[in-house]
Order: sequence, then structure tokens, then C-alpha cells
Amino acid sequence: MLQLYFSPMACSLASRIALMEAGLDARYHLVHLATKTVADDDSDFRGISPKGAVPVLVLENGERLTECAAVLQYIADLNPERGLAPRPGEADRYRLQEWLSFTGAEIHKAFLFPTFWYKDEGSLAKPRARIAQTLSVPAAHLADREFLVGDSFTVADAHLTWALLLLRAAGVDIAQWPSLSAYLERMRARPMVREAIATETALRKAMAA
Amino acid sequence: MLQLYFSPMACSLASRIALMEAGLDARYHLVHLATKTVADDDSDFRGISPKGAVPVLVLENGERLTECAAVLQYIADLNPERGLAPRPGEADRYRLQEWLSFTGAEIHKAFLFPTFWYKDEGSLAKPRARIAQTLSVPAAHLADREFLVGDSFTVADAHLTWALLLLRAAGVDIAQWPSLSAYLERMRARPMVREAIATETALRKAMAA
Repeated sequence: MLQLYFSPMACSLASRIALMEAGLDARYHLVHLATKTVADDDSDFRGISPKGAVPVLVLENGERLTECAAVLQYIADLNPERGLAPRPGEADRYRLQEWLSFTGAEIHKAFLFPTFWYKDEGSLAKPRARIAQTLSVPAAHLADREFLVGDSFTVADAHLTWALLLLRAAGVDIAQWPSLSAYLERMRARPMVREAIATETALRKAMAA
Repeated sequence: MLQLYFSPMACSLASRIALMEAGLDARYHLVHLATKTVADDDSDFRGISPKGAVPVLVLENGERLTECAAVLQYIADLNPERGLAPRPGEADRYRLQEWLSFTGAEIHKAFLFPTFWYKDEGSLAKPRARIAQTLSVPAAHLADREFLVGDSFTVADAHLTWALLLLRAAGVDIAQWPSLSAYLERMRARPMVREAIATETALRKAMAA
């Protein structure tokens, strides 16, 4: 069975959503990112992945795959009937890769990462000044589209949904981009997305308690 | 004919290397990133891509593709005989995506981007403290491998080669990771890589003059 190492509401949430939307069972292992330990047995998470980052997907053959863009495409291709990614080689597959890269680099690594990990004002001033320009790109794209790629839900939507949720927690009011706000509400109305978020929100609250 | 919007020694260098290694002709348009203008005619680069970032690859059908991870995979798949990426659907294709994401997010967006664009000490202290841990990942991977994925040159190598070149310019001495140093020298010994770097180095010097 597939196994996913995750931290509640970290970007591994997108992988959980993808697994659920793909109808795939998996064992989920909670990781404490601050201490780099696996909650199951307090073992060193760097023994699972030297990167010390989630998601880590353990494949059926025991190999470990990291990085949202790779993990999400892998999950999507395991059950192509669900249409979570355009088939490899199709023109829209490159659009999917374009959005996975944009969300991972421009929203996550350039803004959310310094916000939640660096925290000090010196680290945050420039990313904050830049985030509105960054978000104008998906806002314009989604002004007349229901989904990021093609006309159905893909793993790129799972990824952006996570990022938009975290932007709220990072103090960015996405209501200033009505198309992003409406998109997030559409995505959150999907049963699997709602369930994934509810599961991880509850875990997060339990960890903070 | 394909067209590539690039800026000398920006991450679009990886796309130039990929095009040359794939044996594909292209028209190259130089972009001044500081002013967001296209050198050909001083037109507004944001008219080409609202992101204002390179690379932008104009496909044969006129569509524009952005983001290194997507552009590099697109180029590789145009001429699969050259083996610049494992075929879509092969297990190693996800390893390629994993490295493209890592280089794009962890090296480029988390370190090189603040170094060259934000510049102030407040923005740089934390990324600088983190880069050694980041680079230990490809250093360990390349300790007993000639290339990042499989046993031949792929677009993931084009991407990392660019990043390692820029790390030197960013003040990171990669000699402290002998496997990375040796890898960079191997990649630079490839005729197409050498020619691509020589072309963009000359353009960069001409721009600075």
C-alpha cells in the first residue's frame, strides 16, 4: 500500500487530496517538521528523507518520491480514469506542469515558506511586497475558467487550493481577487477536498493543544 | 520555428542548453528583466508574459509556455531520440520532475532569487544559512552518479548546471562539495553546454559594457 509522510496543513495536504480524489488507499504518517520526527515512533524523519520535508510518498516498490510536483503527477497517473492530470504527452500536461511549478516556486517557496519558517520582518518585507503581483497571474487565468487546466479538477487544483488556504493563514486576504476567492470556495465544496481539510485541521488542532 | 525569450545567464539558460542538446533551431529574444522590455524593439515584455519572467517558449502553434520545469520537459519531448528526458510514464520521469522541482524551488527560488533580486541583508541571512543543507542533497546523490537521472544527460542536468553556475556568482563556493564541483566540470565539458554558456556570457558582458 502507498504511504504518505505528511504534516497537517503543510503542502502534503495536496497529496492527500490527490490520493482521495484518485480513490487510492494509503497509510498516512504524521511528521513533526519542527523536530523532524515521525509521530508513529519518534524516529528521525531525515532517515526517511534527507530533505526533511513533506510530502514523501512511499511507492508500492518501496522507493520514496519527494516534491509536490512529482508526487502529485505520480498519484494522478496511478488512476488515469479519474482524470486528475492530462495524459502524459498531451499538450495540457505541460500546462499542468506549468501550474505545479508556479504554485510551488512563486507562491510556496517565495512567499509561504519565508512567512512560516523565517518569520522575521527582514525576511518578509520583500516577499510581502511581491505577492499581489504573483497572485494576479492565477486570478486573471481563473476569471473565466472553473479549473486551472482543462475543464475538470486536476492535481494542479489540489496544489493551488492548499496554497490559497495557507495564504489566508499568512495574512493575505484573497477576497481582493474575487476569481481566486470563488475558486477556493468551489474547490472546498468538493467532498474529498472538504474531508481532507477537515482531517488535517483536526490533527493540527490536536497538535497545538 | 520555436522562439525563446531569455535573459543572459538567467534560468532560461537551461532552456537554451536543452534546445541545443535536442538539436532544435529557435529564435532567441533577449529580455531586459530590470525594465521588463524586449531588446528587439523595446516593447513591453509583460505583453509576452504577464509574469514578466523568463523563460517563455513560443510553441509552433503560437502558444506560450512558461516555467523551467514545463518548458524543459516540452523541449525534451519534442525530440525523444536525444533522450533528454525519460519517456512520459516511465518511472524515471517522476525522478526528473523531482529534480526539476528541487532545483527550481529550493536552489533557485529559495536562494538565488533573493540573492539577485532582494539583495538586502535582511532578505539574505536566512537563505544563506540554509543553502548548505539544500546542496547536501544533490551532493550526496551525485557522489556515485554521473547524471541526476538515469545514466545519461537530461534536462534536469541542464537545470542544475545553470543553478550551480549561478551559485558561484552568488558567493557560494561549491568546491566544498567535491561531487558537485566535479559534476559541474563534467557538464561544462559538453560542447553544447559550453557553447550555450559562452553565448550568454558574451551577451551579458556586452549588456554591462
